[in-house]
Formats: sequence, C-alpha cells, structure tokens
Amino acid sequence: MEPSFLENIEEGLRAAIESRDLAPAIEEAARYALLGGGKRLRPILTLQSCVAAGGSPADAIPAAVALECIHAFSLVHDDLPALDDDDLRRGRATVHRAFSESVAILVGDSLQCIAAEVALESPRNTNLIAKEVLEATRLMIDGQSYDTGGVFRADVTDEETRLRLIHRLKTGALIRAACRCGALAAEAEEEVTARLDRFGTAVGLMFQIVDDVLDETQTTEHLGKTGGKDQASGKRTFPGIVGLEASRAEITRLAGAARNELNSIGSEADPLRELVEFLALRTN
Amino acid sequence: MEPSFLENIEEGLRAAIESRDLAPAIEEAARYALLGGGKRLRPILTLQSCVAAGGSPADAIPAAVALECIHAFSLVHDDLPALDDDDLRRGRATVHRAFSESVAILVGDSLQCIAAEVALESPRNTNLIAKEVLEATRLMIDGQSYDTGGVFRADVTDEETRLRLIHRLKTGALIRAACRCGALAAEAEEEVTARLDRFGTAVGLMFQIVDDVLDETQTTEHLGKTGGKDQASGKRTFPGIVGLEASRAEITRLAGAARNELNSIGSEADPLRELVEFLALRTN
Repeated sequence: MEPSFLENIEEGLRAAIESRDLAPAIEEAARYALLGGGKRLRPILTLQSCVAAGGSPADAIPAAVALECIHAFSLVHDDLPALDDDDLRRGRATVHRAFSESVAILVGDSLQCIAAEVALESPRNTNLIAKEVLEATRLMIDGQSYDTGGVFRADVTDEETRLRLIHRLKTGALIRAACRCGALAAEAEEEVTARLDRFGTAVGLMFQIVDDVLDETQTTEHLGKTGGKDQASGKRTFPGIVGLEASRAEITRLAGAARNELNSIGSEADPLRELVEFLALRTN
Repeated sequence: MEPSFLENIEEGLRAAIESRDLAPAIEEAARYALLGGGKRLRPILTLQSCVAAGGSPADAIPAAVALECIHAFSLVHDDLPALDDDDLRRGRATVHRAFSESVAILVGDSLQCIAAEVALESPRNTNLIAKEVLEATRLMIDGQSYDTGGVFRADVTDEETRLRLIHRLKTGALIRAACRCGALAAEAEEEVTARLDRFGTAVGLMFQIVDDVLDETQTTEHLGKTGGKDQASGKRTFPGIVGLEASRAEITRLAGAARNELNSIGSEADPLRELVEFLALRTN
C-alpha cells in the first residue's frame, strides 16, 4: 500500500458499490455521493491509526470504507431541504438537487446499510468494529437532531456546552470511531486504543471548530459549499459563541492535546502528527 | 416464552430504544414509530421459524427485533412527502405529520442503525444474522427505488415481471430474511434453512398480493391507512395488472407452496401453518 493510502481508499469505496448489484438509480446516486471527491479524512485516520497501533493497514480497509460510507450518507441526508437545505457540496450540486429528494433519501439509506455490511467484512475484531461504526452513526444522528432544533436534556443549558455536545456527536463521534477502528483492526492493546480514542476525540472537535471558523471567514467559492451559511441560518458556531480569537486558541490547544496522545508512539505515528498540523492549518 | 411471543417482542422493541440513551427528539419519535402497534409479522415469523427449526426462540429475539426496527424505519421514510406522501399509518398520523420531516428522516436513520446494533446482539450465528438483516434492508431499498420511478435494468421489461421484482424486494426480502434469521438463530441444518427460505419467499409475495387486493377492495377506515392509494397514485398492483380473480388464485397457490415447504416438519411448525392461513384470509 502507498503511504497516503488514497488509492486504496478509492478502490475500496468503488468496490463497496460495484460488488452489490444495486438498483440502477441507487447505484448512480451512490457513485455520485461517494466517489465525487472529499478529503477522505475518516478513512485516512482509520488506516493511519492502524499503522500507528502497529497493525497492517489492509486489515483496516473495511472499517475505513464503512466510515466514509456513513459520512457520505450523512451528508446526503443533512443536505435535504427538511434538514440543512443545501444546494452545493464539494463544488457540485447536492444529491437531491442533482437527482431528486426521493433518490437522496433512498441512497442515504442504502449507503448506511452498505457501510454496516462492509464493516462486517473486517478480518480482525469484526464485531467490535461493526459495533463501533454503528454506535458512532447513532451518536452522529443524535447530534444532527440537536443541531436542527431537537430538544436538549434538561441539564444541558448553556450555549457553549450545547455546542460542544453537538460537535462531539455530529462530527466527533465518527472521527473518534475512525481512530478506534484503526486500533481495533490492529488488535492493539487497551492502552494504545485508549490513546487513539483520546487522539480522535481531540482531532474531531478541532476539525469542527476549524470548520466553524472557515464558515465565518471564507467565501463559498473557496469552500466548495455555501459559506457563511451557519451564521445566516442562525446555527450555533464556535466563533459565534466564544469569538474568533478564543476559537483559534482552542484549535491550538486541541492540536497540542492530540499530539500529546501520540508521545509514546514512534515514527509510525508521524502521518497522524502531520495530519493534525494539516487539519489545524487548513483553509478549506 | 408465551406461544404467541407478542409480549416478548414488545419488550424487546422497548429495550432496543430505552437501552440507548437517544437524543430526546429521536427517542420520542422512535417510540411513536416502533411501539405504536403493527402486526409484528416479521418478528413473529422469525421466532416461529426458529421454533420450527428446533431452536430456542429466545435466541432469535435480537434478529426479530432488528427486523421490526428495519420495517418501522422503512415505513417512516416511505411515508415521507418525497416518497409515498402518506398522512396516515396504522390509523394515526405518520411520523412526519405527527412530528416533522426532519425528525422523520433522522429517526428512520436511527432505527436502521439500532436494527443493525441489535442484530449483532444475537447469541448464535451473530455475523450471519447481521448480514442477513443488512442484505434484506438493502434489497428492500432497491425495491422502493423501483416502486418510486427508478429505472429498471434493460432486461426487465414487462409489467408483471417488474411488479414481481418490486414485491420480491420491497416486501419479500424482509419477510424471507425473517424466516432465514429464525433458522440461523436455531443453527438449523442447511436443508431446513433452505426450506424456511422458500417458505418465507412464498409468504412474502403472498402477503404483498393480499395487500394489493385489500388496497383495491377495502376502505381507508378499515385499513388504518389510505385505501385505494395505489390505484389513485398509478402504482403497479397485482390486481391492476393480472386482475382480481387471478390475484386471488395466486394467493391460494402461494399459500399452498408455503405450506408444502413445511411438510417435513412436525407440530412445531403448526404456528407457521396457522400464520399462512391467517395471512391469506386477512381483511386488513
């Protein structure tokens, strides 16, 4: 496998769709949603976490592909008119705009299903990996519920706590699961899994705060999705609640916390270290 | 366990939701969608297939609950305005009417996820059962794609073949999986599993043809869902293509075919035999 694993990921994603003899309308939309670019952050984190934990990245490919399928399904459903109502994603029409709302609903459902099927193809810790993927998916959906006006529990009252909960669930759960699945695929020891778990938790929150900052500071053209949208729609964002400066300080703090979790791991964690820097400094 | 298993099923469904600490808006809608009645046909078939295959029904409870969660999720999404646009289900407002479209989309996603999680709690043949549930889910979604205007493959041209394909996928896949999962939970021999597979295939098609006939011949009040809807919306139905008399003859033929598959099984298959009669003669 190549150091970046990008080709292996794309090949795994294509195979997840092509090996299943889907209904033509579902297959066409699944290709559009899943193979139309994207950073592939979650599968890269899975494969590099597996490497950092001393495993063989090939063993983590099913988990990596499964998590990207979940990510793609969540984007398709979140973009629907009844939810975030977005027309643009990765510089292209969203699935419901390119096809139809009914196709978007059905292909999202199908991608969620395919994700679980692929997770069950994991050669090691099969059930634990599938459970990890599914629990993260359920938490992500909870996060989207809170983020689209769903009531909070009575004890979650202040705005920053609510936003941190939303970020931990909606974005963080899948990124944390990506790192945990890498460790599970490597059959890592408990302590290593716990470190990669905390690493993923920090990276997940950092990633979303960077996203919030970019939404406030970048143009639509640069982002490839509608910029300023969170502000315009009155959504909670990190800079909206604590300000831009405090948001940037939190990004720096989380990047440091993530790096610290890798201290006991040698050069096999270098790709994860570089990824943290890249994600903290990214501009789209 | 009671012979009818209905209490065990309801308890399993409640536990599937209550053990998961869902976001409040998701939990409320999940209760509404999952615990608001229904024939519980799929879980009953799972448990009785397990009994017919010589197993202990307790071992089939996770599969039974998982399949009912999938069924509930499919109803919630299929009722959405972008799909079948239904206001009434089991005599009550559909989820998107009682709550909102966004809640309906998210709770459907969550129920699909919970189904796979519960399937993975199966004590025997865990992975095979989870794969069975997931494959049937994916086929069911393919069926809904065809049923809502999705293109067919080039070799599926005539109307009856198309309708049989839709019925086999949209309704049949889950009912067949219910019977197969019962056999898997019983760790049945290959031949028994194959018999229950063919039994489920016949019952699934019969069930949907009965549904088509009822849609044409019964009132909305009697059905608890909008009657005459398939006709009004121009959907393919069995009586619409082959006529009422031929539909009734096909129901009789399929009931006989289903019964025949049970010939080598003794009185432990009596509940399945009674179920076939009940389903062939049901009026709502």
